Order: sequence, then C-alpha cells, then structure tokens
Amino acid sequence: MEIQILDAGTLNGFDVEVDVLVVGLGAAGAASALGAREVGAETLVVERAGGGGGTSAMSGGVIYLGGGTALQKACGFDDSPEEMLKYLRASVGAGRDEAKLELYCEGSVEHFDWLVAQGVPYKETYYYGQSGEPPTDDGLVWSGSENVAPFRELAIPAPRGHVAAVPGAAGHKVMSTLCEAVEASGAKTKFNTICTALYRERDGRITGARVETFGESHTISARGGVIITTGGFILNDEMLDAYRPEARKCSMRVAADGDDGSGIRLGMAAGAGTRHLDKVSVSLPVTQPWDLKAGLLVNAQGQRFINEDAYYGRLGDNALLRQDGRCWLIVDDTFYVKPDYGFELAAVGETPKELEEELGLPEGTLQSTIEVFNLHAKRGVDPLFGKREPFLTPLTTAPFGAIDCTTENARYAVFTLGGLATDVDGRILDPDGRVLPGLYGAGRSTSGLAIDGYSSGLSLGDGTFFGRRAGRTAGAR
Amino acid sequence: MEIQILDAGTLNGFDVEVDVLVVGLGAAGAASALGAREVGAETLVVERAGGGGGTSAMSGGVIYLGGGTALQKACGFDDSPEEMLKYLRASVGAGRDEAKLELYCEGSVEHFDWLVAQGVPYKETYYYGQSGEPPTDDGLVWSGSENVAPFRELAIPAPRGHVAAVPGAAGHKVMSTLCEAVEASGAKTKFNTICTALYRERDGRITGARVETFGESHTISARGGVIITTGGFILNDEMLDAYRPEARKCSMRVAADGDDGSGIRLGMAAGAGTRHLDKVSVSLPVTQPWDLKAGLLVNAQGQRFINEDAYYGRLGDNALLRQDGRCWLIVDDTFYVKPDYGFELAAVGETPKELEEELGLPEGTLQSTIEVFNLHAKRGVDPLFGKREPFLTPLTTAPFGAIDCTTENARYAVFTLGGLATDVDGRILDPDGRVLPGLYGAGRSTSGLAIDGYSSGLSLGDGTFFGRRAGRTAGAR
Repeated sequence: MEIQILDAGTLNGFDVEVDVLVVGLGAAGAASALGAREVGAETLVVERAGGGGGTSAMSGGVIYLGGGTALQKACGFDDSPEEMLKYLRASVGAGRDEAKLELYCEGSVEHFDWLVAQGVPYKETYYYGQSGEPPTDDGLVWSGSENVAPFRELAIPAPRGHVAAVPGAAGHKVMSTLCEAVEASGAKTKFNTICTALYRERDGRITGARVETFGESHTISARGGVIITTGGFILNDEMLDAYRPEARKCSMRVAADGDDGSGIRLGMAAGAGTRHLDKVSVSLPVTQPWDLKAGLLVNAQGQRFINEDAYYGRLGDNALLRQDGRCWLIVDDTFYVKPDYGFELAAVGETPKELEEELGLPEGTLQSTIEVFNLHAKRGVDPLFGKREPFLTPLTTAPFGAIDCTTENARYAVFTLGGLATDVDGRILDPDGRVLPGLYGAGRSTSGLAIDGYSSGLSLGDGTFFGRRAGRTAGAR
Repeated sequence: MEIQILDAGTLNGFDVEVDVLVVGLGAAGAASALGAREVGAETLVVERAGGGGGTSAMSGGVIYLGGGTALQKACGFDDSPEEMLKYLRASVGAGRDEAKLELYCEGSVEHFDWLVAQGVPYKETYYYGQSGEPPTDDGLVWSGSENVAPFRELAIPAPRGHVAAVPGAAGHKVMSTLCEAVEASGAKTKFNTICTALYRERDGRITGARVETFGESHTISARGGVIITTGGFILNDEMLDAYRPEARKCSMRVAADGDDGSGIRLGMAAGAGTRHLDKVSVSLPVTQPWDLKAGLLVNAQGQRFINEDAYYGRLGDNALLRQDGRCWLIVDDTFYVKPDYGFELAAVGETPKELEEELGLPEGTLQSTIEVFNLHAKRGVDPLFGKREPFLTPLTTAPFGAIDCTTENARYAVFTLGGLATDVDGRILDPDGRVLPGLYGAGRSTSGLAIDGYSSGLSLGDGTFFGRRAGRTAGAR
C-alpha cells in the first residue's frame, strides 16, 4: 500500500468531520477510540479489514500487567510497581523509554481494572509450566524471564501474564470484547477502509486524512487529531531490508494482513521521528514443555550462548540475531520429550562425540561444552549463564539428541517492535523530539516498552495503555 | 542543533540564489560540489566549521577502491570489478543496496583516476602488515577481510585500501586536496555557517534553506537542489539512544564536531525514508601488530567467537554487539607483543587454568577453548572460524596473558553508518522509495555501501563516489 502526504490547502472542505480519527482497529486502536470517547470526542475508527481485531486478535492475548493487580492478588502473588519497573528496566533492552516504563508500572493495576470494566473476562487462577498463554482458561501465567538469571537477582519475580478466560490463545476474546466496547462507546467504525494519505497544513499540522473504501475515496477532517494504530511492518519486505533483514529468515511472521508498515510510513512521510526500527521480537518455542529447558542450546561452534530456562522470546532474539539462526537444543534421554510445536531431531548419538560428529560440529567442541556444563551442574550451578534448578541435570544418559533450531527447519515467530517516536500521551514527535501537531500513535506503529528481550504481553499492554492515553489526549483538544 | 522545516510560501524571495546548495564540506560535500561544477551549476557549499574537512580529514584517509585501479596494477595486484563485487556482497551485511554496490564496483577504476585528477597524490607502493593506513607513505594496503575466512573462499582477494602519499593517517591530505579542488572549481564556500532549516513548497518540494553565520540568518534558494552531506550522528546521544544505544559504550567516537545528525534530522523532518540507522562501524584494533592475530579472542564464557585474523572492524562489531563488549585476547609467550594502541594486560597465568582463574572465568571454559584450538591448530586448521596460517600457533608456552578488550578499558572506535535513503544518483527517497523532490544526500548522512562488518575506506569511497553523482544530478536540473 502506497502512502502520501497531501496539501490541505487544495481541498474545499472535507467530506466528513470528526474530532478524532483512529486508523486501525487492533488493541491499540480500540483503546484509542475508547480513550477518545471517555473525554466525549466524536470518534471514527477506520479499519482496512472487514472487521476489528488485527494482529491482536491472532495473538495469545497475554497482557503484561503487574504491580499487584486484582488477578495477581487473587492468585496469591505479591507484586509492586517498583519490582515490576525493576524487571522491565533490566529486561527491555538499552534505549528504553524511562517515562513510559514508569507510567506503565504505576498505572498497571488501574489498567487491569479498566480492561475488566470493558468486559474482558479473567478467571482468578494461576497456571504453571507454560510460557505465554496456557492451554486452559486460567488467568495468570509467567510470560517473561522474571524468575531466571539475571533478572531473578535484580527484581522480585512475579508472574505478570494476564490472559482472558478462554482455553488457549485468547487474543480473539480480548479483541471481540474491546471491539464490542468500542461500538457501545458511541465511536463510529468503518471497515474495509484504508487510510492512504494525511492532509497537512502549510505549518506542518496534520488536520485530516484520505481514506478509501472499495475504490471510493473520502476525505476526513480530524479536529483533535489522527491516531495511527496500524501495527508494525513485518509483512513489508522492503522495510525489513531497510531495518532488520534477518527477520526475513523467520518461518512465521506474526501478523494480520495489514502489517505492512503503512502507518509508520505515513508518519515518517509527515516528518515523524522513529525509534528502534531494527528491533523485533523473535520467539523460539523449543523449550515447551519446560522439561526441555534442561537441554543445552548450542551454536555452530558447539557453544552454549544463553541460559536455556529464559523465556522463549529471549531464546529467539539471541538465536536469530547473535547466532545467525544456527543452533540446536542438545538433550539426553532422561528429560527428552517431543516439543509441543513440531521441532524435529537433527541428529542422535550414543555419546557426545558421536552426536558432535553427526551434527558436523568441530571435533571437541560439543564434547567440552557438555563436560563443562556437567561439571558445574553436578554442583547445582551454571556459572556461564546462571540457569537454575530444576533444569541443571547433567547430560549423561544415552542416547543424546539434537533438536533442530536452525531457521531453515525450526519455528521462529517474529514481529516488529520499533516505530514512530511518541511521548507518553501518544503525541507523535519529530526527529528533534518536538510534537508533530495533529498526529498521534499507539501500538506497534510506535516504539513502545519492549526493545530487546521481549516478554509476552508487552505489545497488547502498551498498545492498550498508551492507546487509551492517546485517545484521551487527542479527544480533549 | 535544532532543525526545522519551514513554509517557502511565507518568504518574499530568498536572500541568495544558487543552482546547488551543498551542506557540509567533508569528502561527500567536496565531491558533491565538484560534481555540480562538472555540469556547470552555480554551487555554494556551507560548512559549520571554520574550514573544510570534517570527519574525513580526521580519518585514516583510506579509500576502498578496486577492480584493477592504476595503483593496484602498479603494485602488481590483479583485481576485477566482479571479484570486488563478490567480496562486498559477502561482507557488507544483509540489507545491502545492490544497485549502489554494482555501480561502485563498475566505476571504481574511473573513480580512482578522478581522485588523482583532483590532485590526490598516491605513491605506487604496497605495504604489508597493517590494517588500514600504514605508518609510511605507501599507497596500497589491505583494509578489509578479503584474505580471511569466509571471504577468501568467496572472492579472489586483493588489497583495495588506497591511501594518499603521506605517512600515517592521510585523511587530512585527501581533504586538503579536495577542498583546494573545490575552490579551483569555482564553487563558492561559506564557513562557520550552519543550515538550520529547509524551505518546503506546498507540494512537498524542497527549494531552499536557511543558514546561520555568527547569529545572522540568511535564506538561500537552490533551484537544482539541496545536497545534505553533514555526516553521521555519533555525537548525538539522543539519536544513539533511539537507534544504537550500545555505541555509547565505546571509548572513542570517530567524529568532527558536526556529527550530531543534523542533516539526517533535516531529511527526516522533510519526510525522508531512512535505512540502517542502527548500524555502526566499530573498530577494535587489538591485533596490531598482526602477530597478535595468533591470539584467541574470548568472551565472558571463555569462548572464541570470531576468526581473530579478520579485519579489526569485524572484530569490533562482533565484540561490542554480540558479546556486549566483554572479551579478552588470549596470548602466549611465543607471539605476545605489546599492542600498538595502548591495550593493557588484564591477567597473566602460568597455565590456562591459572589464567582462567585470574580472569574470573568459569572453571573449565578457557581451558577447553585453548585445548580445542590447539588440537586443530596442530593440524593447521581452525574448523570453528577458519582462521588461517600464519596465525594458527598452538598456545602452549607460559606465561599466558589476557589483553583487556572490554569496553571499559579498551579502545573501541565507533561511527554511524545508517542514514537517509538515497538512490544511486543521490536523490533522497521518501518512505515508499519515491523521490523527495529537491533533496539530495551523500556520505554518512545517508545509508551507503557498508551495513555490517566494515572494511576501511568504504565511507570516503561511497561519500566521494555517490557525492559526485549527487552533485551532477542536482546540478543538471
């Protein structure tokens, strides 16, 4: 989809006038519309698909919240905004947005209540043993690396994955609920409608947009502002080549059809700044069931490179971006189980040496990796990467196996994290950090909380949290 | 420095009118001005410093050229555009610009002749044993990883570092010559002058700029176009936080005062697309003299991670970005010499085990790394990373040492590589890849040939090559 910036001065008035125009109806768009309606703004949401939901509806529906939410309390977990902030500061990567992180942690309890008030159902039960959404309808899960090295030492761990009460992936439930709330709020929605251009005044202010529905074009004035919530760009190969070419090697792009970066390109063409367009979330869900965390993830030199008990979003980032997607999970017969997601064995051997040969690894490499791991695991420690019990089983029982985690053969699930620069109220910023008048954004069209080392639920989390704020800000104008 | 996009419609004519306005007088700016003059355009160059040169003048002055230049031939080296292209394709990283690479390799012989015609002096002698500029006034050096794994197998190696005939760093010689050529060409130059704003017509076209000299403001119309050649953004901490925070850990930022990204921000504010803003060149010159390439560069887990005979720009990228700047070069007594650039020993030990303990590495890690390396080195191979003779000495002779290569204590020299998106004629492109009328760019304000795994001379190379093309294109309008 091509985008344009047009001269508002060439128009004789707009076809439609609203206070707030929201472009895209995923989680961020729904929250933006609800926020705008909270302050009484006349609100129109346009969505290119035939209905609301977007990539959010296809997701696991995990929302990363904490600080002592009602759900955390009901499940018996203590948490505080301070500990949540410590974890996020330590885990989201360099170049983080301190102001957004602080506000998000402070407002997380209230934000959970707001989601419940919109009608999102949560069962007050905790599920152990699954990274991300559980197979059941339980409400609370671990969805990050809170209780593994090095984060366990840096912040008191608590599970913060809040999952709507349906078995398995719950994104559709979150989104059907939020879309109903949008309809009930009095916001208007228009589907099968894409935004192809923004209208700009001579002073740079954005005052409206051009949208297209089944080949027909309309102009819409947005007195308060246009809010871009069109998602990321994982389906746009040209943009991936420009910002993160390695993502193209991943077998699974987590995306609804609309994730072609149109909103990011609209913002950039209007003069917006960007942040972290090279950043992606890469999941490598090979340690599912968790028994497999006892395995050793080794690279093409037979070396370990991460604590394998880390959340699979951390495994994926490291495997793809630091090891070029060339790695294998080494297992022995005591803990091997077939992985949940269809990973295959690349090689089997009666000894580490035989497995090393089968994999074509240089002589001595995998053998010494296993020896060094076993030496320490017998003492109950992993001084290389800090992996913890119960995953410190020395690998001694034949046969040994290597689960294929190469990008050619394994499941790597990827989506983009970077986007337009925004302030905490969803205002889009120019390259100097000044407000670009009339333009707002939220969700994966913008740079949010997570940069590196993803924890699941941060995208639905920051999309709804800062989307709602963007809606309120634009709507209050 | 803050930048702005202003409405050209508010002006009653410009103070000064030229055909081409070049912003910045480094290598790219000089070549742009010369290119514009070649087609007869009235040309003004503004430079914020008191004289021309920029970061190019502070550099080693290596220019990466090949394909069979007069200098390569005089020194007895065969090369062809095809082999040069093979090497660059393999080494510059994913997301490369094929069209630019092809044109550069095809035009490289002619470009060398052009540099000579401008007056840049080259001595027709070859110097062996130095990565980058030699201590002598010799003309040709290895300045990349052409003759090491994996590139040696992918393209016929040839030295392609062309260095002007002065001892040591030659950037000042290249730039004094090019600046004289600019003056002789009839282009006007104005120093102590910064460009703070671009003027935009209602249709988006850039038609001029506002510049400031000692607090006085002038407007300049550029009928053919404005060419941005203001360098990268390694001195702008906010931009580094947004695009490559790790670069802030480097002890040495390779930059003249002006490298604050002002030109990139001007372009972005005008609606330009960008490419690879996260990419940096990081040099870790620890293997100088080359004897030290026999050492083993190990990370915080005592593991090797690269063939140590690679060019120090590759060592730096990998050390900083994949190993978080935590590594040491392990040496033994047979080949240890003091590194040229002031690296210090972090630890010494009579045995690998003792050195491992001194460094605080996990038990068994460094020991097995040395054992595995020695096992293969005795056979004359390095199956892990493909390091070659004469650097495959088994490490057996006490004492053993560890040269400190951590970011805290070692010399990491960094500059940015990404920038505005341009076509092969220097036209700046919007986020959809369409020409942004009136705006041109070259050098490190733009994304050029190198993305990852730098070879020295590519920045002066693409800056002058595509700068000249930008000047000709803008000047011909």
